[in-house]
Amino acid sequence: MKDEQEKPRRSPRSEFDFINSLRHRAGSLTTQSLFMGIGDDAAVVRNSAGKDTVITVDLLVEDIDFRRTTTPPYLLGHKALAVSLSDIAAMGARPLWSLVSIGMPDDVWQTDFVDRLYDGLLDLAHRYGVQLIGGDTSRTTDKIVIDSIVTGECASGSSVMRSGAKAGDQIFVTGSLGAAAAGLRLIERGAHLAEQNLGDEDSQKLDHILLRQLRPEPRVGWGMVLGEERLATSMIDLSDGLSSDLNHLCDASRVGALIDSSLLPIDDRVQELCGRRALDPLQLALHGGEDFELLFTVKPENTARLPRKVDGVEIKRIGEIKSASEGVKISEGSRTWELKPGGWMHFSA
Amino acid sequence: MKDEQEKPRRSPRSEFDFINSLRHRAGSLTTQSLFMGIGDDAAVVRNSAGKDTVITVDLLVEDIDFRRTTTPPYLLGHKALAVSLSDIAAMGARPLWSLVSIGMPDDVWQTDFVDRLYDGLLDLAHRYGVQLIGGDTSRTTDKIVIDSIVTGECASGSSVMRSGAKAGDQIFVTGSLGAAAAGLRLIERGAHLAEQNLGDEDSQKLDHILLRQLRPEPRVGWGMVLGEERLATSMIDLSDGLSSDLNHLCDASRVGALIDSSLLPIDDRVQELCGRRALDPLQLALHGGEDFELLFTVKPENTARLPRKVDGVEIKRIGEIKSASEGVKISEGSRTWELKPGGWMHFSA
Repeated sequence: MKDEQEKPRRSPRSEFDFINSLRHRAGSLTTQSLFMGIGDDAAVVRNSAGKDTVITVDLLVEDIDFRRTTTPPYLLGHKALAVSLSDIAAMGARPLWSLVSIGMPDDVWQTDFVDRLYDGLLDLAHRYGVQLIGGDTSRTTDKIVIDSIVTGECASGSSVMRSGAKAGDQIFVTGSLGAAAAGLRLIERGAHLAEQNLGDEDSQKLDHILLRQLRPEPRVGWGMVLGEERLATSMIDLSDGLSSDLNHLCDASRVGALIDSSLLPIDDRVQELCGRRALDPLQLALHGGEDFELLFTVKPENTARLPRKVDGVEIKRIGEIKSASEGVKISEGSRTWELKPGGWMHFSA
Repeated sequence: MKDEQEKPRRSPRSEFDFINSLRHRAGSLTTQSLFMGIGDDAAVVRNSAGKDTVITVDLLVEDIDFRRTTTPPYLLGHKALAVSLSDIAAMGARPLWSLVSIGMPDDVWQTDFVDRLYDGLLDLAHRYGVQLIGGDTSRTTDKIVIDSIVTGECASGSSVMRSGAKAGDQIFVTGSLGAAAAGLRLIERGAHLAEQNLGDEDSQKLDHILLRQLRPEPRVGWGMVLGEERLATSMIDLSDGLSSDLNHLCDASRVGALIDSSLLPIDDRVQELCGRRALDPLQLALHGGEDFELLFTVKPENTARLPRKVDGVEIKRIGEIKSASEGVKISEGSRTWELKPGGWMHFSA
């Protein structure tokens, strides 16, 4: 969960310029490995055995990515692993192993915080057959930091990069959009999970929205299906927000896109609850981050091969890849406008 | 470089009890992988291709593991990778890939700190053919955190665990002992690297000692030779200090040990400079941490096969593995006493 909406999680130079310069400096391909990692959802290393290894790392920092007071440790452990599993899914790979580094101040080490954190992480790991194989622990002076590392594998050459979309490909998204960002805003206004289920329909809807923020569900099954069946030509997970992540994908693929706003699978409960709270569901769906759904592209001739559901989660076609010269756009009825990145980075202005 | 000698880097429950409980909870072997990681220097995953993958993670936290004021960013980048390369070496494996997560406050991101940090990391990486393939970046509220991940590989089953020592095995150590801990103490007293080489013999010796603390050299070559030639029956790197790390190795192997103090390769310059500064070279060599030398055991019939030098670094026999009932001991002349762990954990009492 994020702290200050006015400030980007990343420093202005860190995420994009910095990663680009680092990609350049980290350099050329070696004889040991073919890697295409920095700047995609995960690093890919080609093994000799017909398999590629995929590795992702996610650093979560207290008061930047979560608040100790509003994130129960069990859900923090879940989320630390979930964001990494989502990256592996976005590569079309099967997650295998997890490592986690945890830094905490002494007073937190003395509590059961870390046990509950591992409960959350291990419950999610077991659900997907992922094994926790290592990590590191340290004291810190005051804040909690968690670095989550997940490795996965896929058949050689079958990892799905951000860079493979071609004009004419159809754009799909899993699940629904907007609830994670709505949940963050409601938490910031003081909402919290019901202590017990009161059966009250409204509080169930509220919990659903809060849990999309606090307990994101990585689309592991969809990632594996899209990778193994070679259905997706490109893929990214929605961590920064649809508008930002679609622009990342289009930049990497050197293409444009046209999204039809009427097709966006905006979360029903966001539609219902947000109107009363002066939140705009469409804005949340377009620019809100952390839905951890998968955004992917499919050649027109392959869309009929897409399964209807994986693990109970549906997908929705939301638009089409265009040539780069057409830009990244969204239509609403007869109007069409440019869809600028509006997630994390938006708030840095 | 470490901050407060009175406090352990780890919380009392984190390093040993915690890792043991986690090893238990992380659970049983799966069909996908054989892993033996938690509690050794690195995790080991058996691949299908006759190779094992070794993965290690090291979390460095500002004001716990280093101070921003006394550690130039170039050397911090070097050290972040060096400690992980040392873990890979201690498994007898060849390092291949590096990932690094960096969290820094905004004001540090605005400087060239991160560029210099990567300079140090990449220079060391290139020296050993290690490729930086990914990582994550984040803002933090005030402190710098660095999480360094390195993967390596070795032939299936040839990784060197802490647990393989048998009574009668000879105990060896690479390089020399005590300088890293001496360097830490001198830095705490205000010593710093000479701005330029003045040719002054004493300041050259001082720089040598300070650099053993600030710029540790992982014994990558020795690790690979000892693993590939199957010469070492057990191995650990000296991060906590000889007394602590020997006890870790003996605990894991369920053996005892007898060290001959007259055989310890105490750094010459520590011997020369420390007497004048009321530091005891033997105590530094036994209990001082962060020498990042390799401590390993060899069957008596294999000691003749050991190379004399690797990458210009010699080894020294310092004692012999005994049965568990004989305990972990050190002899000095005719006297023998118990060698208790006296590194990091010592200062927590």
